[in-house]
Amino acid sequence: MITASPLGTLYLVPTPLDFGVNTDGTLTQHLPDSTLAVAAQLRHWITENAKSTRGFLKRVQLSHGLAATLQAMNIQEMAKHVHKKGDHQPNSQDDADAHTLLAPACSGHDMGLVSEAGMPAVADPGSSIVRTAHRLGIRVVPLQGSVSLMLALAASGLNGQNFAFVGYVPQETGARHQRLLALEALALKTGQTQLMIETPYRNNALLHALLNALKNDTRLAVGCDMGLPSALSISASVQQWKTKPALMQSVRNDRPTVFLLGC
Amino acid sequence: MITASPLGTLYLVPTPLDFGVNTDGTLTQHLPDSTLAVAAQLRHWITENAKSTRGFLKRVQLSHGLAATLQAMNIQEMAKHVHKKGDHQPNSQDDADAHTLLAPACSGHDMGLVSEAGMPAVADPGSSIVRTAHRLGIRVVPLQGSVSLMLALAASGLNGQNFAFVGYVPQETGARHQRLLALEALALKTGQTQLMIETPYRNNALLHALLNALKNDTRLAVGCDMGLPSALSISASVQQWKTKPALMQSVRNDRPTVFLLGC
Repeated sequence: MITASPLGTLYLVPTPLDFGVNTDGTLTQHLPDSTLAVAAQLRHWITENAKSTRGFLKRVQLSHGLAATLQAMNIQEMAKHVHKKGDHQPNSQDDADAHTLLAPACSGHDMGLVSEAGMPAVADPGSSIVRTAHRLGIRVVPLQGSVSLMLALAASGLNGQNFAFVGYVPQETGARHQRLLALEALALKTGQTQLMIETPYRNNALLHALLNALKNDTRLAVGCDMGLPSALSISASVQQWKTKPALMQSVRNDRPTVFLLGC
Repeated sequence: MITASPLGTLYLVPTPLDFGVNTDGTLTQHLPDSTLAVAAQLRHWITENAKSTRGFLKRVQLSHGLAATLQAMNIQEMAKHVHKKGDHQPNSQDDADAHTLLAPACSGHDMGLVSEAGMPAVADPGSSIVRTAHRLGIRVVPLQGSVSLMLALAASGLNGQNFAFVGYVPQETGARHQRLLALEALALKTGQTQLMIETPYRNNALLHALLNALKNDTRLAVGCDMGLPSALSISASVQQWKTKPALMQSVRNDRPTVFLLGC
């Protein structure tokens, strides 16, 4: 009688919110011990970028001994097309690719899924891997860690009991204006806070578009550098944003920023 | 000349996801050092429940010395009515209450805002405190920690680049059915994953209502006990849920559970 080998577990491993930039001190500053202890035991990884995952593992090693040398780690990158903004479109090609990447788990090895910063598959690629793991009967365990969207939401004072993250808004001026008006109408009608992000070098363009589109009484919040010592949270009415230039000047084009609107 | 004393900072302090139940070991298992180090320095707190906040501080003390004895801590509870489900309705009474609670920060003391589990003001009370802090010019800093909604989302394999948390759905059968149909229509039309929660003793009732309302091809996921050793994540089509009784039986009425639907 042949017994099928048991499947490995797919751990969703959150990474620090600093994108590998602030490497002072150990990762225990950013992540709970339970997360680091599991990450340190894994030898098989699926990632957006193998180089940054090696950088992450070097930082893990400062506080937790790794189960293998970095050279011996099996670090596989997801296909580039599943990295794109709004990549979640279930299709058979992604599922087949994910199945290939999950081969170690199918052979009984535990695996880690990581993204560049924060929680994989939340405002980041990875959902096709997770979906396929479920289909294959692989246990999926999310490890504890921070999500910058939620830090920004908590710090906004906007409604945290009904909220939506809509990703990126259109870049084209007219389409973006219409989208922002639609999001504001939804927020004012339902009370649902609307969260969005932008490529950092376009932060100021989005801020101006928001102030141009929204009503004066609508509340607009931003969270920059969430989870970092330089964290900045601003929450004010559109009217206040317009009359206090210091608010606008504090939003910079080189920092990861979450934008939120609501009431 | 009288110089106004500088304002304190309002820290949003995440608490462990175990609701104070699993108290083995130190909190470094659940929270990053940076969060615990700040929490240990605070003497002024705003909370849903003073008793559980004292329990939290006792756990902090196992790894990080507190700045004052528990008896000397100033722990203020929010008014009961802002504890309610869907409490976010900006109004002058809540703002006035929040101003009173924030008096220590107005006098220059740093303060901590906490909820029963996870991040304050996310699927939990606290937004009126944060909103008022911004109005008073008090700096708001969210500390790093986990949000069970995001662990459940990452582990669902559903779309994490466009999602909404809608809180609780109606309890009344007909209204609940209509609400679930509307959420499914929205998810299928826009690709936006819809997350909801239920009072734990009604988990099974909500699961049955979901299976009764949704199309067979719609994907339904649950995340139970997120962040705990007993964590369970299931993600399958409605058809699969209906044909595998073991899936349904694994959702229990006594565990905090997040429900997600999408494609």
